[in-house]
Amino acid sequence: MAKQITSRSENYSQWYNDLVVKADLAENSAVRGCMVIKPYGYAIWEKMQANMDKMFKDTGHQNAYFPLFIPKSFLSKEAEHVAGFAKECAVVTHHRLMANPDGPGVVVDPTAKLEEELVVRPTSETIIWSTYKNWINSWRDLPILVNQWANVVRWEMRTRLFLRTTEFLWQEGHTAHATKEEAIAEATRMVHVYADFARNIMAMPVVVGHKSESERFAGALDTLCIEAMMQDGKALQAGTSHFLGQNFAKAFDVKYANKEGQLEYVWATSWGSSTRLMGALVMTHGDDSGLVLPPKLAPIQVVMVPIFNNEEQLQKVLAKMKGLKEQFVKLGISVKIDDRDNVRSGFKFSEWELKGVPVRLAIGPRDLENETVEVARRDTLTKESLPMMNVVERVKNLMDEIQKNVYDKALANRESKIYKIDTWDEFKEQIEKGGFLLCHWDGTKETEAKIQEETRATIRCIPVDSYVIKEEGKCVYSGKPSHQRVIFARAY
Amino acid sequence: MAKQITSRSENYSQWYNDLVVKADLAENSAVRGCMVIKPYGYAIWEKMQANMDKMFKDTGHQNAYFPLFIPKSFLSKEAEHVAGFAKECAVVTHHRLMANPDGPGVVVDPTAKLEEELVVRPTSETIIWSTYKNWINSWRDLPILVNQWANVVRWEMRTRLFLRTTEFLWQEGHTAHATKEEAIAEATRMVHVYADFARNIMAMPVVVGHKSESERFAGALDTLCIEAMMQDGKALQAGTSHFLGQNFAKAFDVKYANKEGQLEYVWATSWGSSTRLMGALVMTHGDDSGLVLPPKLAPIQVVMVPIFNNEEQLQKVLAKMKGLKEQFVKLGISVKIDDRDNVRSGFKFSEWELKGVPVRLAIGPRDLENETVEVARRDTLTKESLPMMNVVERVKNLMDEIQKNVYDKALANRESKIYKIDTWDEFKEQIEKGGFLLCHWDGTKETEAKIQEETRATIRCIPVDSYVIKEEGKCVYSGKPSHQRVIFARAY
Repeated sequence: MAKQITSRSENYSQWYNDLVVKADLAENSAVRGCMVIKPYGYAIWEKMQANMDKMFKDTGHQNAYFPLFIPKSFLSKEAEHVAGFAKECAVVTHHRLMANPDGPGVVVDPTAKLEEELVVRPTSETIIWSTYKNWINSWRDLPILVNQWANVVRWEMRTRLFLRTTEFLWQEGHTAHATKEEAIAEATRMVHVYADFARNIMAMPVVVGHKSESERFAGALDTLCIEAMMQDGKALQAGTSHFLGQNFAKAFDVKYANKEGQLEYVWATSWGSSTRLMGALVMTHGDDSGLVLPPKLAPIQVVMVPIFNNEEQLQKVLAKMKGLKEQFVKLGISVKIDDRDNVRSGFKFSEWELKGVPVRLAIGPRDLENETVEVARRDTLTKESLPMMNVVERVKNLMDEIQKNVYDKALANRESKIYKIDTWDEFKEQIEKGGFLLCHWDGTKETEAKIQEETRATIRCIPVDSYVIKEEGKCVYSGKPSHQRVIFARAY
Repeated sequence: MAKQITSRSENYSQWYNDLVVKADLAENSAVRGCMVIKPYGYAIWEKMQANMDKMFKDTGHQNAYFPLFIPKSFLSKEAEHVAGFAKECAVVTHHRLMANPDGPGVVVDPTAKLEEELVVRPTSETIIWSTYKNWINSWRDLPILVNQWANVVRWEMRTRLFLRTTEFLWQEGHTAHATKEEAIAEATRMVHVYADFARNIMAMPVVVGHKSESERFAGALDTLCIEAMMQDGKALQAGTSHFLGQNFAKAFDVKYANKEGQLEYVWATSWGSSTRLMGALVMTHGDDSGLVLPPKLAPIQVVMVPIFNNEEQLQKVLAKMKGLKEQFVKLGISVKIDDRDNVRSGFKFSEWELKGVPVRLAIGPRDLENETVEVARRDTLTKESLPMMNVVERVKNLMDEIQKNVYDKALANRESKIYKIDTWDEFKEQIEKGGFLLCHWDGTKETEAKIQEETRATIRCIPVDSYVIKEEGKCVYSGKPSHQRVIFARAY
């Protein structure tokens, strides 16, 4: 094979890194903790963006853009918020470089020190709510339903491509509402938009739920999330939606006049998802041959590889392929013809498997004679020979079949790793093997912290749509009473 | 009128600011020199992006993403480049805040000082070429045709919304080629892509040309540009495309093995356009009533305003409008029905004029009786009453008519302000009145600098597609020989 990747059973973590780099999704940059998203990886991200953006607009949201920099004093205005982010902030202190007076290169110009330092946004609640103050006067100005596509920076000590990087790309929705009920409804609506996107576009099963208090976003009254399970049984938080109450409205003094003319603080939500989803995509569907892309996110949905011994054969095969390509393009299926002459077809097969292209077509001299095409599926790694005249219809159907199959496979993986756990011994044993542990919990921070300390497991969510088990029980750790099972897992 | 804007004749500069703010395009933020792009402004920018992005992809380019931060030492590697940007760099020096030990709020944690400072990218040549070093080994790896949509920061002392802001949004193409000829061809191709976009999508006439040496991008061997003329006769640079030679390949040691196996330095281009185009759009087409949007960039192409005296009339009119809307949507025309009940229709008319919506339809009780619709054009501020059955066809045609008319109007403005100038006295007189001055120039930096010093006029470009006048003449300033006229103007 072209580029060897470590197998999942050998080292899941190394498999992931190999895959991201060798499938040309991303690589580490010269800047600590920051990645370069390569064209193939970025093309997948663009498809994620396009799909989500449409969903946001269909639910009434508009895009806008707010500054990259946040004055240091803004961050301090909401106490919990600053406590949550202060340790991860990249800080701009100067606005000019100058020639080094003592040698080559440039140095920071000490005379260009900023009066107030600027933080590179780790998230934009503060700068946005300072803006909303000027946008909101009356109930007629509400709701504000705004989203931003942007880069953010959180200084991470240990980074991994896509999963945890110092700079990442994301979208952050920031909405303002007249009532508490409306804000809660918005936060709920958006977590379900994320779930819809994850399930139907990424073909990734997710559980929707509430975070426990200690896992909430810094400054939120409630955090909803979607949690996915990777193939190794670890959880990955794939999107969050926060009900922020009036915390930011109070911090930035944002009030509106209600219909009776009385001033009230505005209610807020924020919700975000990031290039982390790329990592989730890789780990949900990939196999030991490489990436497996759901057709809805594949930049190339069909690759055609000509089989030939000489130029004449190549030209005949290419002519046939171009005819097919035209038909695919009309159906909105994206196609690449790999006509490279410096690598063998076996090399090409491996490369496109590595890159996760859902369907591969091969046509050789014998196929020309027999009017056949070899159709290979990436998800099952199976091949079939089909009459040329049936191939367009077949591939068209395969787009849906593969999309469904990769979802079903991921769902089966998750289902096989869900455990109802009722004793602490079982818990400790199972958590080492991975999976989602459905357990009773006494609802206290203390118990949650002790469980994490002893096992590195956290409460991923208190589920609201799948695995909702409301029943009387006893906390798996403390034995105190509990009314609902929650999901514990180790997480990325 | 709803929101008064200054007239152009009274104060062109104030008119621009009023328009940008009152049409809800953008506003100044709490962060010095940084703007907030509001939803309506951002929707126009998204349309610009979508159109350009398609043009880039149609010419074989792919998007990617590189880090926001650039290590200080990288910037120094290309001597001219660092000289050009050092004075405008926002510098990150620390990666953590901490609770203020002496009072409330947070302060920079002195123990979290970076070993090497990071510059917030003012442009990405250096970080990208440090990456390309790993991507390029052989001629088979070339060309690399990559574009990035990103935010950049250049610390500006005097800022104006869209035209000059500390942070702005842009795209930057960065390509790598095996030969000089190919790189020059790419730089040329892309400046013409910009010209095509400006003319056909923005409806903005531009002149394509070369920059003089002193106006070149820091690090380029040649800079091509598109120059537009605003209504006040000042020039606005709307996009640039640079032939970078081997400067960055040498700075970052990027070589490729050619077909003969010999190592050669790679040739480069870069090209960029930014949210500055939003300013150009406003100043090219706007009038004293507000924004005038070419239909291809209008987020709302048709607005419908119901005229009514009571709820029953309103419902009847709205029913008619919804029927029309469906037909427009099928034609890909974006429509808004303004059914607000708290403002009068006159207020609505002014507001949508201010926002530059190309076509306004009004339907009232009398129209219902007569089966008519009032159709108003934003570009000409004219109205006509049409039979209901003809309105869809008429509006469809108006999309093209208005697109063409606003271009023609802008072109007529430019044509009326182009002057062949042959004496220094004429030059000094005319430059005060604005316009493009087609002059002979002796080709020296010294003369160019003196002209700028005395008149604030710069060489906008040495034209290559319009106003190309190759003839023998004498420099308008020095009287020395010249073979081609160049364009002098004052510029934004």
